[in-house]
Formats: sequence, C-alpha cells, structure tokens
Amino acid sequence: MKLSGGVESALHCCVVLTTAPEPVPATRLAELHGVSATYLAKQLQTLSRAALVQSVQGKSGGYTLTRSAEQITVLDVVEAVEGPGSTFVCTEIRQRGPLAAPPDACTAPCAIARTMHAADRAWRAALRGVTIADLGRMVGQDYDTDVLTQVRKWLQS
Amino acid sequence: MKLSGGVESALHCCVVLTTAPEPVPATRLAELHGVSATYLAKQLQTLSRAALVQSVQGKSGGYTLTRSAEQITVLDVVEAVEGPGSTFVCTEIRQRGPLAAPPDACTAPCAIARTMHAADRAWRAALRGVTIADLGRMVGQDYDTDVLTQVRKWLQS
Repeated sequence: MKLSGGVESALHCCVVLTTAPEPVPATRLAELHGVSATYLAKQLQTLSRAALVQSVQGKSGGYTLTRSAEQITVLDVVEAVEGPGSTFVCTEIRQRGPLAAPPDACTAPCAIARTMHAADRAWRAALRGVTIADLGRMVGQDYDTDVLTQVRKWLQS
Repeated sequence: MKLSGGVESALHCCVVLTTAPEPVPATRLAELHGVSATYLAKQLQTLSRAALVQSVQGKSGGYTLTRSAEQITVLDVVEAVEGPGSTFVCTEIRQRGPLAAPPDACTAPCAIARTMHAADRAWRAALRGVTIADLGRMVGQDYDTDVLTQVRKWLQS
C-alpha cells in the first residue's frame, strides 16, 4: 500500500507557500521542485478543490494558501490527494458462503474491520497532529542554511 | 490509498485456522468465505511465503498456522500481503530544482518524510497490538451464536 507521489509534492508546495510574499504561479512551483509543470498543476488543482489553496488571477497571479498554515494539517493535504475514505475496504466476507451471517446481525463492523479502521484512525491522528506551519518550522531547523528564506528570495527573483 | 482485498481474506483465513481441528484445504477455505479458489490460493501462498501458514501434504492435507495465534499479529498478516515498506515513498524533492540541497545535507529524512513515516509507524503499531487470537475472541463475542464453533463443525462435516 503506497501513497501517491502527489502527496509529497503537494506538501512541499504548501510549505513553500508559507514563505511566499505573493501568489506563486504553478510553473514557478514546478521549477523550484524540479517536477513537470503538468504534473504539479494537477496536484495544485486537487489542493484547490479541497479549498487548501486558491488561484489568484492577474499579472502577479498564482497560488496562495486559503488560510493560516497553522490551520492546515498534514492530514488535510493527504486527504485532499488520497480522499478521506479508510485504507481498509470491508467487502463483508462474513455475509458470504455456507455460514453467511444474516444482514441484521451485521449492522456493526466485524472484528477485522474494526481493527483495521482503528489503525487507519491512528494513522490519520498522527497526520492531523502536524500542521503545515509545523513542517515549515521543522524545515527551518533541519539545515545549516535558512532554506525557507532562500526560497523566498528565489521566488522574488 | 487502499489496502488490497487480499488483506481481508487473509485475516479471515487466519481466524478460521485458529478453530480448525486439522489442516484445511485451500478450496474449503475459499468455499467457506465465498471467494474464488484461485484468488484465495494466491493469498494463502503469500501467507505461506511469510511463514504464517504452512501447507501440510497428504490425504487430510491443507493449511495450518505455523505458530500460536497469540504469536501472529494483524501486522504480520498485513505486511505479508502488502510488504513491510512505508506507505510514504520519498523521492527527495529537496535535492531537485534550482535550490537543490547538496546530498551531504540530506543524510537524514526531511521534515515531510519524517512526519509521514511517523504516521506510518503509528498505523503499524496499532496493527501490531492485535493478534489473530484477539480477533478470534472478538469474533466470538460479536454475535448471538458462537460463530467459530459453527465454523469448526462445518470444517468437520
């Protein structure tokens, strides 16, 4: 089970937008991240549909975050790209075969589904506990150079 | 991001094997679960490669668990089917583009990868905390009828 690569680039874009002094065109974000403009445009549209970023029109148009980076969690971005549905899909095996349980005995999820859904919730809780602002601070502490200041200067160049 | 359906049927098979008085042929497990024999054979081979079940040859041959159900976790089964690798694959975006970080500054995972891997570990920890024996007990308490006793009788019929 793998997350799509879109999650990685979408998170990088969100962190970059926390330091951008003005809207950033999709092509600039693609150039900065060394990925194809078509590919990144798709991820940005996904984030836009989830109302995490918005496209500002005009001469200095581009993308901005729709709200404070403190109010956007990593889970928000992951769910924008991957959807909010559980990673475990129960096909109700217990209702099949010669010992099929009757539907009225199956109104609650079975033990297997409950266990898998609980793990899914633990994963989402961990992603919900980190905001894009947290990621920005972590990136700021990770290197000898101030990466986000470099990014800001590059965006203004 | 979705788990493969193989996880669901593999977990059901393991729970059934906890109550089986003797080895269970793959075709019987497929019949019990109302799934295709070819499909289930593939899942059982996957569990066999992971040394969670073994195939016993002979007239009353079939599959058994290789160890106590208390010693097989849900994570063991999930990793047998899905592999042990993290759900997040980092492509080192930070090392691309005009501000590419030099390789010697990237020996540790970046903030985004760390966050995603931490959530992956939380998911695995939740799955590691439940054994096949636990699932058997939960199934036993879920219904008015004793499902696993019914299964045992059916396997002996």
